[in-house]
Amino acid sequence: MLTCTGYAAESARAPLRRIQFERTGPGPSEVLIDVMFCGVCHSDIHQVRDEWHNTVYPCLPGHEIVGKVYEIGEAVTLHKVGDIVGVGCMIDSCRKCPSCTEGSENYCEGPNSWLATYNGPMVPGAKAPTRENSYGRDNTYGGYSNQIVVPEDFVLKIPASLKPEAAAPLLCAGVTTFSPMRHFGVKAGDKVGILGLGGLGHIAVKLAKALGCEVTVFTTHAQKRDAAEALGAHHVVLENDEDAMRNLTASFDFILSTIPQKHDVNPYFPLLKRDKTLVAVGALEPMAPLNNMLTAFHRQSFSGSLIGSIKETQEVLDFCAANDITADIELITIDQINDAFEKVINGDVRFRYVIDLASLKT
Amino acid sequence: MLTCTGYAAESARAPLRRIQFERTGPGPSEVLIDVMFCGVCHSDIHQVRDEWHNTVYPCLPGHEIVGKVYEIGEAVTLHKVGDIVGVGCMIDSCRKCPSCTEGSENYCEGPNSWLATYNGPMVPGAKAPTRENSYGRDNTYGGYSNQIVVPEDFVLKIPASLKPEAAAPLLCAGVTTFSPMRHFGVKAGDKVGILGLGGLGHIAVKLAKALGCEVTVFTTHAQKRDAAEALGAHHVVLENDEDAMRNLTASFDFILSTIPQKHDVNPYFPLLKRDKTLVAVGALEPMAPLNNMLTAFHRQSFSGSLIGSIKETQEVLDFCAANDITADIELITIDQINDAFEKVINGDVRFRYVIDLASLKT
Repeated sequence: MLTCTGYAAESARAPLRRIQFERTGPGPSEVLIDVMFCGVCHSDIHQVRDEWHNTVYPCLPGHEIVGKVYEIGEAVTLHKVGDIVGVGCMIDSCRKCPSCTEGSENYCEGPNSWLATYNGPMVPGAKAPTRENSYGRDNTYGGYSNQIVVPEDFVLKIPASLKPEAAAPLLCAGVTTFSPMRHFGVKAGDKVGILGLGGLGHIAVKLAKALGCEVTVFTTHAQKRDAAEALGAHHVVLENDEDAMRNLTASFDFILSTIPQKHDVNPYFPLLKRDKTLVAVGALEPMAPLNNMLTAFHRQSFSGSLIGSIKETQEVLDFCAANDITADIELITIDQINDAFEKVINGDVRFRYVIDLASLKT
Repeated sequence: MLTCTGYAAESARAPLRRIQFERTGPGPSEVLIDVMFCGVCHSDIHQVRDEWHNTVYPCLPGHEIVGKVYEIGEAVTLHKVGDIVGVGCMIDSCRKCPSCTEGSENYCEGPNSWLATYNGPMVPGAKAPTRENSYGRDNTYGGYSNQIVVPEDFVLKIPASLKPEAAAPLLCAGVTTFSPMRHFGVKAGDKVGILGLGGLGHIAVKLAKALGCEVTVFTTHAQKRDAAEALGAHHVVLENDEDAMRNLTASFDFILSTIPQKHDVNPYFPLLKRDKTLVAVGALEPMAPLNNMLTAFHRQSFSGSLIGSIKETQEVLDFCAANDITADIELITIDQINDAFEKVINGDVRFRYVIDLASLKT
């Protein structure tokens, strides 16, 4: 057993505070990683505060992890000590279901779904159809810690050209926005709309632009215009500007909503071309009522999408290296985390907090 | 001008009553049809009662029309006097937009959208971006009448083997359920779920079965079990049977909701396989809030779909002839129409009322 240090919450209302906890050391196919940096995702807040009603405490979040390989199991072939590697939202999956065997572990249909990096597995034993927990673990601990142990095939390679701290958000925010663009066939020349300009939205703008798309950011905040343009957006539209919205009727090939809570996507369906899709990746909760009069009129779809596969995660990392993309981050120390949570909720971050885990040692 | 007779409502609260009105006689490319039969669609009720807030009065409904060609314009080549023909929800479209030129007139993107058979055009001049009405008509009158005039290429051929009165509902209910099954790739061997067992639902069951699918009807009414099985459904599931619903997890390739008002589709997403779609064709209004936690977990889609193209309408008629499918109907006289509306609302019809327009003459 390894004695580790991290920041965790003991209840939905408690702040994160330093704890010591134990991890099982690396098995034959596992990698022990010294965590260098970990992004602060809005999901971390939802989970810590039990907003999805499934949190197991203590809750030690963090799934945008970049670190250095410290030790490898005897059967490990994919990574070696000293490699700069990444860990995203998953650290294992059932490896047997159709989704897993097709390389879509993020849609694992096993009885416990995939093993989340923290607060895993996604489906606990008590809620599994088999009433069992095939992972043998009731609560995983994430990247707000000094070390983490992960099966080698769920560990990503961080390209050398990417700054590790600015690459960390690609492990969740990057792949979460990249995966639906790829799956729904977004291509060069497409008109793409991005709703929301936070951690996910700002990366989505960079990715869509690098894919050769004409990118429009929709926002309620006029003061985000400059930031959106600086990120590379070709157009910025205020969603209460009715004339601007009307002028965009039936012009978009794809719209991605990154807004992290319940919202109304109805105003965006008239903006999509026939047969196109609006995908919401930020709000994992009931949306405002969808008006089927709108979706029916041009046979449009509303879709959900959940992070991305391990293959897609490596793909987005390599795509970012090839296109010189990283997240715009603000580096914080671990003792600033509770304050950072509040700022994330208030949209007061440009655009992603990343924790420097070196600060855990001080 | 032709002086015609029909049943129309003068206001949202008025019953339908006999009126005389004028139609412009057939132009060079138009067909004058003696209406024989007209189905009673739930949309007729929504429109008559202004439930979509766009009704123009008098409102003379009816868009499941079968009749006999009485007269043709000089340039007509597709039909001849005496032919048994059909008219569905549309009688014209802009003929210029991408959807029209691609043969998807039902998704016409012209300034006034398509010309609905009644209460057309879909987008009136006052609401059009151009503020004009390119059809030159502010209110069309439907099939609850003795005659109708329609451009020849919006007139369908009724195969000789189909009983005209039982074929009428194929013009709307048939194509509305057939079109999304074709568009979303439903094929032999697929597991298909049908929600609701009314006018649309009962035809959807027959069509899906004829396509070679394994068909499950979901209903809230235990007494519909026998009827569903008689229509050919392989399985009938009561939607409040939690065990039955759980046992169907991730097993469906396609689910079609034909329920004609706001309802909750969330319980059905866990039943769909990954990447599959639930299409709602009955409720053209805001749905109950969609929980994106459900759709995201297996990257599923909610889609709308609006009737079908002229090509698809002919296709469903020919498919039904080849597979010996018609609607299960109850034939009524025109003076029973107000009572029939109430029974449709109460689900008290097996499964489609069709008006025998011969009764208009008596």
